[in-house]
Amino acid sequence: MKAVVYNGPFDVSVENVADPTIEKPLDAIIRITSANICGSDLHPYEGRAEFDSGMVFGHENMGIVEEVGAGVDRITVGDRVSVPFNLACGTCRNCNDGFTSACLRANPSGQPGAGYGYPQMGPYWGGQAELLRVPWADFNLLKLPEGTEHELDFTMLSDIFPTGYHATELAKVSPGKSVAVFGAGPVGLMAAHSAALRGASQVFVVDFEPDRLALAETFGATAVDLSTGDVVEAIMDATNGRGVDSGVEAVGYQAHDATGQEHPALVMDNLVQVVRATGAIGVVGVYNPVDPGGATEEAKEGRIAFDFGTAFTKGVSIGTGQCPVKRYNRELRDLIIHGNATPGSIVSHELSLDEAPHAFDQFDKRVDGWTKVVLHPAA
Amino acid sequence: MKAVVYNGPFDVSVENVADPTIEKPLDAIIRITSANICGSDLHPYEGRAEFDSGMVFGHENMGIVEEVGAGVDRITVGDRVSVPFNLACGTCRNCNDGFTSACLRANPSGQPGAGYGYPQMGPYWGGQAELLRVPWADFNLLKLPEGTEHELDFTMLSDIFPTGYHATELAKVSPGKSVAVFGAGPVGLMAAHSAALRGASQVFVVDFEPDRLALAETFGATAVDLSTGDVVEAIMDATNGRGVDSGVEAVGYQAHDATGQEHPALVMDNLVQVVRATGAIGVVGVYNPVDPGGATEEAKEGRIAFDFGTAFTKGVSIGTGQCPVKRYNRELRDLIIHGNATPGSIVSHELSLDEAPHAFDQFDKRVDGWTKVVLHPAA
Amino acid sequence: MKAVVYNGPFDVSVENVADPTIEKPLDAIIRITSANICGSDLHPYEGRAEFDSGMVFGHENMGIVEEVGAGVDRITVGDRVSVPFNLACGTCRNCNDGFTSACLRANPSGQPGAGYGYPQMGPYWGGQAELLRVPWADFNLLKLPEGTEHELDFTMLSDIFPTGYHATELAKVSPGKSVAVFGAGPVGLMAAHSAALRGASQVFVVDFEPDRLALAETFGATAVDLSTGDVVEAIMDATNGRGVDSGVEAVGYQAHDATGQEHPALVMDNLVQVVRATGAIGVVGVYNPVDPGGATEEAKEGRIAFDFGTAFTKGVSIGTGQCPVKRYNRELRDLIIHGNATPGSIVSHELSLDEAPHAFDQFDKRVDGWTKVVLHPAA
Amino acid sequence: MKAVVYNGPFDVSVENVADPTIEKPLDAIIRITSANICGSDLHPYEGRAEFDSGMVFGHENMGIVEEVGAGVDRITVGDRVSVPFNLACGTCRNCNDGFTSACLRANPSGQPGAGYGYPQMGPYWGGQAELLRVPWADFNLLKLPEGTEHELDFTMLSDIFPTGYHATELAKVSPGKSVAVFGAGPVGLMAAHSAALRGASQVFVVDFEPDRLALAETFGATAVDLSTGDVVEAIMDATNGRGVDSGVEAVGYQAHDATGQEHPALVMDNLVQVVRATGAIGVVGVYNPVDPGGATEEAKEGRIAFDFGTAFTKGVSIGTGQCPVKRYNRELRDLIIHGNATPGSIVSHELSLDEAPHAFDQFDKRVDGWTKVVLHPAA
Repeated sequence: MKAVVYNGPFDVSVENVADPTIEKPLDAIIRITSANICGSDLHPYEGRAEFDSGMVFGHENMGIVEEVGAGVDRITVGDRVSVPFNLACGTCRNCNDGFTSACLRANPSGQPGAGYGYPQMGPYWGGQAELLRVPWADFNLLKLPEGTEHELDFTMLSDIFPTGYHATELAKVSPGKSVAVFGAGPVGLMAAHSAALRGASQVFVVDFEPDRLALAETFGATAVDLSTGDVVEAIMDATNGRGVDSGVEAVGYQAHDATGQEHPALVMDNLVQVVRATGAIGVVGVYNPVDPGGATEEAKEGRIAFDFGTAFTKGVSIGTGQCPVKRYNRELRDLIIHGNATPGSIVSHELSLDEAPHAFDQFDKRVDGWTKVVLHPAA
Repeated sequence: MKAVVYNGPFDVSVENVADPTIEKPLDAIIRITSANICGSDLHPYEGRAEFDSGMVFGHENMGIVEEVGAGVDRITVGDRVSVPFNLACGTCRNCNDGFTSACLRANPSGQPGAGYGYPQMGPYWGGQAELLRVPWADFNLLKLPEGTEHELDFTMLSDIFPTGYHATELAKVSPGKSVAVFGAGPVGLMAAHSAALRGASQVFVVDFEPDRLALAETFGATAVDLSTGDVVEAIMDATNGRGVDSGVEAVGYQAHDATGQEHPALVMDNLVQVVRATGAIGVVGVYNPVDPGGATEEAKEGRIAFDFGTAFTKGVSIGTGQCPVKRYNRELRDLIIHGNATPGSIVSHELSLDEAPHAFDQFDKRVDGWTKVVLHPAA
Repeated sequence: MKAVVYNGPFDVSVENVADPTIEKPLDAIIRITSANICGSDLHPYEGRAEFDSGMVFGHENMGIVEEVGAGVDRITVGDRVSVPFNLACGTCRNCNDGFTSACLRANPSGQPGAGYGYPQMGPYWGGQAELLRVPWADFNLLKLPEGTEHELDFTMLSDIFPTGYHATELAKVSPGKSVAVFGAGPVGLMAAHSAALRGASQVFVVDFEPDRLALAETFGATAVDLSTGDVVEAIMDATNGRGVDSGVEAVGYQAHDATGQEHPALVMDNLVQVVRATGAIGVVGVYNPVDPGGATEEAKEGRIAFDFGTAFTKGVSIGTGQCPVKRYNRELRDLIIHGNATPGSIVSHELSLDEAPHAFDQFDKRVDGWTKVVLHPAA
Repeated sequence: MKAVVYNGPFDVSVENVADPTIEKPLDAIIRITSANICGSDLHPYEGRAEFDSGMVFGHENMGIVEEVGAGVDRITVGDRVSVPFNLACGTCRNCNDGFTSACLRANPSGQPGAGYGYPQMGPYWGGQAELLRVPWADFNLLKLPEGTEHELDFTMLSDIFPTGYHATELAKVSPGKSVAVFGAGPVGLMAAHSAALRGASQVFVVDFEPDRLALAETFGATAVDLSTGDVVEAIMDATNGRGVDSGVEAVGYQAHDATGQEHPALVMDNLVQVVRATGAIGVVGVYNPVDPGGATEEAKEGRIAFDFGTAFTKGVSIGTGQCPVKRYNRELRDLIIHGNATPGSIVSHELSLDEAPHAFDQFDKRVDGWTKVVLHPAA
């Protein structure tokens, strides 16, 4: 089959590789209809996260079940399914507790959490390919309505829509609350969409890319342009000096200040300022324990010297971590089916697999208009 | 009346000052029977927090109602009451939501949160004195059974018992969970006691003072001695390599390493290591936005460069802040009344008001055996 | 002042009565701008609930603060305010816990819960009058933006909008869930609106009045007409046989079957059928411990012989009771201010106080089009 | 193998039956070390629930894994395991949500929820036998420490300890709360034990069997003897007229009044009286949709005419249903391992399989001292 293969920093290519096969009784093979490129694919792409040469990219996958193992009894061949990026066993303690993001058995390294085509998350190939092997298929796969309707919306169910939603859950967004989302990349936009779905009365989205801010407004959010003024002041003013109830961190350790300087504590510092006393911050932007390319010695060790003294004084809570997709994807699917949610509206490019190398290059350079790329391997 | 007055760093004295009076219709005057010295009294005592000369110390207070204002209709003269250290209006948004720790109206500075005899928390005199004025008395005061029974237990209801309990709430302790409490000072001990009351199956308490560790064991906890080995390793071993479900930070920004060096990120770093993926940390040890005596430039600005990258990777949640005492004190009182809780067992000294200056000195020097001091102004 | 006075069953009149005055330091006097007639006003009107002759009706009130007592320090004269129908002390145990609906001190009878102009809920006059006395004003009153904007929306904040919302809270509605609301009276309509605000993916509203069902559809709900088929079947079909996640009881003990026969267990029976196993039912329709007009001996004693065996077998949870308005009214106000919520759209009649007797008559007869009446005493 | 077989009402015998075998890749075969007789076994035994002749009894099982299917990858041969009485697939919607009690796939009848040797819960044989087949073994089985320690405590993990705990969860028991448990059978006793583990300050247990009440007191509860006075009055007196925060229904539809008359609404009626306004009731005593032996027409249809009017007026919440054992059994196991919980202390008889018919007879007749029977098939 054809697949998007990592060769080294800034070097991906579409190669012919061996087809995946049923290796265990609970495996399924999925024929991929849509596989998205994710912002976190850029971490290995840029050499900011270790990744084995030869790995197949792609953890945002959906498709049609092609084959199932002998122990699979819920999913059947022909089912249209979404594949959560968390690859999880379904029977360990963390899976039992709903934390598929920290499955204790799927990652042979012994670290909690596994994924497809993702650094540090096991040997599993990704789905930017024609076919994908999915272990523990009955547990992992979410059934979708037959056909091709809502393909672009449903393909957001594997990662970024639940991840944005998880951010609002960590940030304790509930009806009537006000929310500030930092970062209008795909995850930030999904957080803004989710905040509205959860009944927030005010949603602010902070970024400096005009096209992303424009997209945020399509979800009913108020755009706050970092490049044209003081963000903290703008949000305090818009909330009568009270600050927001909830804050979302959708940027991560590669935050840049207005001058283009990398400043890993910047977003957390701003959030601690704009979130009111007793409020909550949800962090889904990625921070790593080791960052060889970190700007400072502290950053290289994953240390983020943000204003913890103010966070404590305000009694702010901070929720962090990767989204356990299964906790949310069924309800989010139903919101798509019934017309309440339209996460696919942020897709800027639908491409064939062969166009993936170009897409990585453009997306990495944050070329205007390259918001979200969906690959259709069958196209 | 006599009161413990702050004159400047390392200088407190017992002085004759004006009796408090009913200033507003909702005030009450309390005749203090017990007022404790708190570890956080040492921050101004050591000059590590700004405090006005002439202020009366004491935010851990209980006593008998001596007089009430015209608008007080729940509390009556003669009631035995506990006074939460959070002085709160009872009618603002945060009080409505149960966050009396962030009352929006009681502190004339406009900062959320007010208290008695406490830096940055308003002009209110403390209760290390014969009498105390309590605003919004109906809302703030907790009724206790008549008489003198359980005095030492009940006097812990104004701050440290609820604060320790709050730590376990922020750390999401529930039946069967394992917990590591860092710091075996009074608050850490109360957190250990609370963890047991909440049904934890394993409670570890980390410190290097043998007398405090011995007290921790009286609450059923396992003592972990910082001075004799690697704490992280000890806890990982005792949990079969899994780490604990919940961690409590009961030390604060003045943490010291084994060599006596101040190291403000040390406790958070250890907690991030010992708390398992998906776990929770409750922070009640104090961190300040500004610390003139901070060891580094970052510390002076309240920046704590702990290992946030690992916290994120593990998906740990971090709850912080002062305890809203009213949220817990009634239930904790009932646990005392029915014999389930014995927080007063940590009291090492019961002294008269005149002995307060000596007590401050000894407590500040962490002299062996000075665990918790209760002043009895009437004695 | 003029006020709507109860003389006996089916007999109300507008009378001149004494103006209310500040009786206690925490009282306020409100000049009523809007006072709604509520479905529960019809219980005493019809003689189905004991009510003293001479009482002033009206527990859904808003207006402008005219005067405050000496102990009031948050609310000031001239504030535009909403008055929750629960009259609550703000300092008892239940008020502390957010259950203003069960205040332990406001009702002189000793029963939990007090209200304005309401049977069994204390001697307090209602607000279908020019002026209203509000005890514990700082605690009870919700500030609204100055002016007259959103008057019809804001006047729903005193009762039915929070009550409908409370129903969805008891029924555990969350994003993506499906909900069936039984009863398209004002409270049922507010429940439907609330379910949508909370992100429900499907909302069914069951009734047999076409005008009410049409209103339900304006909130995005699917109307289910009781008079034209089997409700349980209709909802099971629309959910692929699964049933709904959540059910709302917004009818109460006076439920009628299709033939007009009163049948107090009917709605609970239907809910137990349509709510799926593990689901939740929120009951805000009123059931009384004593109902002199009950259809059976059991009904007279408040006994409702619904299908508890099926409820247990399905593991359904049932939340009940009057809404503690203060728990929700601030957030709901903010949803109105920011344009997300439009509860006032159900108002069918805006009348002067003098028109109240006619309104009671028409509303009680469920005359077509009399959905919700708002009285403007100043008009 | 030998097994306890149902032949018809009041007729069980120990028979030789075919050994179970691995039928599907996810099956395991368990060699039973302990299988308890449960009070709900008496429903079919007495002919109050339909049960096929030839079925093997026993849903409270533990033992050693003897064999596993090809798809089992977590559990291994030789593991000592507890088998939750809920037989669940682990991959349906309800299992995903933690409601293994309402698994949508395990019961071929299409009804939610399956079990071993249990009426209406599928064709699965029970474990009062030498061997037991467990489907979806990786998901269902809880690992226990090797050896034979705590056997009597661990054997309570399959049903009654989690069921008692679930009752306290439904009843919202938390530290400092007061609780009334109706029924001092094994489940009621486990609820009392659980309430204490959760930090309740007062636990009342109501029954009329002196031996059971005595056992309740060993868990720190206060016994309330139904046969010697008014229960409601006794509990109101012991709570200063306030009533309890939480109530547990551990009796079910076969409740008897003091005269021995069956009265299915009796316990709910009492609970509605003793639980304070805003409180919660957890119902784990069984109520069935159809009861051929019901005392009244209503009872035959599962209708329980309890005082719903008072429940509503008090705003009480009612949680119901079978316990999803997996939600609690790991934490409860850890409480046993660390010495906090001792559920096995209620065992009155340890018998061989051959003694089962006699045990059914004695247990059904509620012969004094027959509190809880554990069968050891290997003995």
